[in-house]
Amino acid sequence: MSTPVIIVNLKLYAESAGQKAVEIAKQAQEVQRETGVTFGIAPSMLDAWVVAQAVEIPVYAQHVDPVEPGAWTGHVSPKLLKEYGLAGSLVNHSEKRLKLADISKVVSALKEEGLTSIVCAGNPRETLAVAALEPKAVAFEPPELIGTGISVSKARPEAVTETVELVRSHHPGVTVICGAGVSTGEDVKRALELGVDGVLLASAVAKSPNPKKKMEELAAGARSVLKQ
Amino acid sequence: MSTPVIIVNLKLYAESAGQKAVEIAKQAQEVQRETGVTFGIAPSMLDAWVVAQAVEIPVYAQHVDPVEPGAWTGHVSPKLLKEYGLAGSLVNHSEKRLKLADISKVVSALKEEGLTSIVCAGNPRETLAVAALEPKAVAFEPPELIGTGISVSKARPEAVTETVELVRSHHPGVTVICGAGVSTGEDVKRALELGVDGVLLASAVAKSPNPKKKMEELAAGARSVLKQ
Amino acid sequence: MSTPVIIVNLKLYAESAGQKAVEIAKQAQEVQRETGVTFGIAPSMLDAWVVAQAVEIPVYAQHVDPVEPGAWTGHVSPKLLKEYGLAGSLVNHSEKRLKLADISKVVSALKEEGLTSIVCAGNPRETLAVAALEPKAVAFEPPELIGTGISVSKARPEAVTETVELVRSHHPGVTVICGAGVSTGEDVKRALELGVDGVLLASAVAKSPNPKKKMEELAAGARSVLKQ
Amino acid sequence: MSTPVIIVNLKLYAESAGQKAVEIAKQAQEVQRETGVTFGIAPSMLDAWVVAQAVEIPVYAQHVDPVEPGAWTGHVSPKLLKEYGLAGSLVNHSEKRLKLADISKVVSALKEEGLTSIVCAGNPRETLAVAALEPKAVAFEPPELIGTGISVSKARPEAVTETVELVRSHHPGVTVICGAGVSTGEDVKRALELGVDGVLLASAVAKSPNPKKKMEELAAGARSVLKQ
Repeated sequence: MSTPVIIVNLKLYAESAGQKAVEIAKQAQEVQRETGVTFGIAPSMLDAWVVAQAVEIPVYAQHVDPVEPGAWTGHVSPKLLKEYGLAGSLVNHSEKRLKLADISKVVSALKEEGLTSIVCAGNPRETLAVAALEPKAVAFEPPELIGTGISVSKARPEAVTETVELVRSHHPGVTVICGAGVSTGEDVKRALELGVDGVLLASAVAKSPNPKKKMEELAAGARSVLKQ
Repeated sequence: MSTPVIIVNLKLYAESAGQKAVEIAKQAQEVQRETGVTFGIAPSMLDAWVVAQAVEIPVYAQHVDPVEPGAWTGHVSPKLLKEYGLAGSLVNHSEKRLKLADISKVVSALKEEGLTSIVCAGNPRETLAVAALEPKAVAFEPPELIGTGISVSKARPEAVTETVELVRSHHPGVTVICGAGVSTGEDVKRALELGVDGVLLASAVAKSPNPKKKMEELAAGARSVLKQ
Repeated sequence: MSTPVIIVNLKLYAESAGQKAVEIAKQAQEVQRETGVTFGIAPSMLDAWVVAQAVEIPVYAQHVDPVEPGAWTGHVSPKLLKEYGLAGSLVNHSEKRLKLADISKVVSALKEEGLTSIVCAGNPRETLAVAALEPKAVAFEPPELIGTGISVSKARPEAVTETVELVRSHHPGVTVICGAGVSTGEDVKRALELGVDGVLLASAVAKSPNPKKKMEELAAGARSVLKQ
Repeated sequence: MSTPVIIVNLKLYAESAGQKAVEIAKQAQEVQRETGVTFGIAPSMLDAWVVAQAVEIPVYAQHVDPVEPGAWTGHVSPKLLKEYGLAGSLVNHSEKRLKLADISKVVSALKEEGLTSIVCAGNPRETLAVAALEPKAVAFEPPELIGTGISVSKARPEAVTETVELVRSHHPGVTVICGAGVSTGEDVKRALELGVDGVLLASAVAKSPNPKKKMEELAAGARSVLKQ
C-alpha cells in the first residue's frame, strides 16, 4: 500500500449499490489520478466483480469466509478473490465481527494468495491483537463513532496515538489505518497527523450527493499533510 | 414457479465460479428452451449480478441476510435483489443455516418485494416448520446425503413422501422441492413420482465435465414423468 | 403440564441470581400450594442445579445446546438435564435465538428424555413453525414488548388469538403460552381469556421488591378465569 | 497463579458431570495438598456452583458471555462469577470459539472483577493475539490434537517453544499454558521443559477410571521438573 490511503467502504447503502457503486469507484480512480492520493474501494458482495472490472484502483471485498472453494453455499472464499480482480478484503468489520480463529484463517489464506487483508478492531488492544496475526493492514475503528460523522481523529486522538504506538512497537511491518466518523478533509488531515497511514470511511462518500467532490476534499486533506 | 423445476446450486465450487457460472447458466437456459423443463440457477454472491445479466431464466442468491439496505458491511439485503435482476434467494441451506427468527424476516422481506424464497430444511418436520412461514417454496434436503451422489429420492423415499403429505395438508399453497444427492435423470424421475414439484441439486451439474449434457439428462428424467 | 401455568424466567438479573433464585423458587412453590395454580421456574445455568434440589415444582434450564454429552466445553446437553432434577428447558428465547436446525435437534432430544421443551417465537407464524416440531409447549413473545411492562395480552390481543387459532388448528396437542410484558394479575387474566394455557414472564417477579406477593397476584389473576 | 499449574477441564463428559464433578474436584484438591502442585478445575455450567462450594482450589467457568447481569436468558456474566465462588473462566476454548470483540470484552470484565481469564488459542500467532489483550493467562491448544491423547508437548514442541517466545517477548506478564492431548506425567514434564507455566487437559482425567491416580501421575511429572 502506498500511503496515505483512503479506503471507501460502500457498505450496503442503497445510495451506493449496483451501478452507483461502479460510478463511485470510477470517480475514486479519477480523484487518485488528479491528486496522487491512493484510493481503495470496498463494494458489497453483489457489486464486487463488476466494480473490479471497471477500475484499476484496488477493490476489496467487504468480508470473506474462512473456507476453501467447495461445497459452501452462501460463502465467499479468499482463494477465489483474484479470479474476480479483487485486491483483498476487509476482515472483521464492526458490522461483521468474526471469531478470532476465523480472522486468523482468513488472514493466512489472503497472505498465501498475495492479497491484502485490512483487519478492523474496536480499541487499541484489539487492534494490537489483530496486528499479531501480521495482516497487511489493521484498521482501528471505535464502533460507537461509526456512522456518527464525529471523527475518531477528533473525538479519540489519544486512542489513535496509542494504537499507532502499540502496533508500530510490536509489529512494525503492519500498516495502521483508522476510521469511524471520518467525514471531512480536516478529519483526514488530523488522522494522518496522529501517525496513521490512511483512513477508512463510508457514509461521508457513499451517501454524499456528490461523492466525487467529497473524495476530492478528503484527498486535499491528505495532501496537506504530505506537503508539510 | 412452473413445474417441474430443476434448481442448480453452483455453491462455491472452483469449477462453477466466475465465467464458468455464466456459461452454466446459459446452458441451463438452452436446455430449458429445448426441453420445456424449467431451470433456475443459484450462483455464488460474487457471480450473481453478472449471471443475472446474462440469462432470462430465474437466478437466485444462495443466501440473503435479514437486513434492510444500510450500514451493513458484508451483508446482502432482500430489498436490493431486484436491482440486480435476481428472482429471489435460497434460504437456510444446510451449508448456511439461519436462526428461525431470521428465516422468518427474510421470507417476509422477499415476499414484500415479490421475490421467490426457497427455504431449505433437513427433515420432514423441519420442512413443515418452514412451510408455516408460507414462503414460495420449501426444499427438503437431508444433510447427510448432500454431496454424496446418493439421491434422497432413492435412499429416503418415505421421508420425501412424508414431507409432501405434511406440507400439502397444512400449507397447500407452498411448492415442495427435494434435494441431496440428486445426480441422474432417474433420480429426478423418482423424485417427481414421489410427488415433489422439483429438485435442488449442485455437484452433479457444477462439477460435471459436461454440465449441459448432464442438465439434458436431468430434464429428460423430468419429462418422462410428465408424459406418463 | 396442568394448566393454567405461570412460568417465571429469572434471566440473568442480579436481583434473582444465586441464593435469591433459590428463594424465589421456594416462594413460587408456596404460592402453588396456596392457590393451586401451577408454577415453573427457569433460573440461570449457574443456579439451575441448586434450585432444582431445593424445590419440587418444575425447574427449567433457560437454554440447552444441540449436543450429546462429550467434548463440548461451555455447552449444556439435553441428555444430562435429568441428572440435575430439571424438568426441561426453554428453547429459542428471544435473548438466545437458535438456528431452526438446532431447535429441531433440541426438541427431539428433550422428547427422547421425557423432558419438557417450551419453544419461544416472536410472531404467530413463527410460533406455528415451532409448533410443527411438536414440542411440549410453544410460547409466543413479541420481542418488542419483552421487558417493557406492556403486556402482550393488552397490546397485541389479536396476535395472541391468531397464535392460539393457528397452533390449535394445525397441532392440537401443543400447549400454547404467551409472554412479553406480562406484569399484573389482570395481564394474566386477559391472556388466559384469549385462550392460552399459561404465561411466561420475568422482570415483574424477578425484579420485584416482593416476589412472593407478586406471584400471589399473578395466581389470583389466573384463578379468576378458572372460576368463571 | 502459582506455577506449575495443572488445569483440568471437565467438559461435558457424562463421566465427569454432576456429583462426579464434585468428586474429581475434591481429589484434585487432595493431590494439590499431597504434592504442592497447583490444580484448577473447570466443571460444566450446571456443576460450577456446587463444585465451587465443595473445594478451595480455583474453580473456573468453562465459558462466560460478554454481558452484564440483566435480561440475558441463557447467558453467564463475568460480573456474577464471584457470587458463586468462581475464580475466573476459560475463554475462547476450541469447542466454544468467540468473536475477538467478545474475547476482549470478557477479558476486561474479568479483570475488573479481579478474576482470572485463561484465553485459549489454536496456534502461536493466535496465542500472541490473545496475549495482546493482557489476560491473566493464555493457553495454546492446537485443535487437531485435542482429545487425541497425542500430547502437544511431544507432537508440536517447536510450536510450544515459539508460543512461549512470542508471548514472553511481547507480553512478559502473561502466564503461558499449553494443552491438547496431554495425558501422562511425561507429557506434563515435557511441556514444562519447553517453558510453559502449566498445562490444560481434559479427557485424560475426566474419563479416567481412576482420576485421582491420574492426577497424581500428572503432578509427579510436574514435580520432576521442579527438582531439576
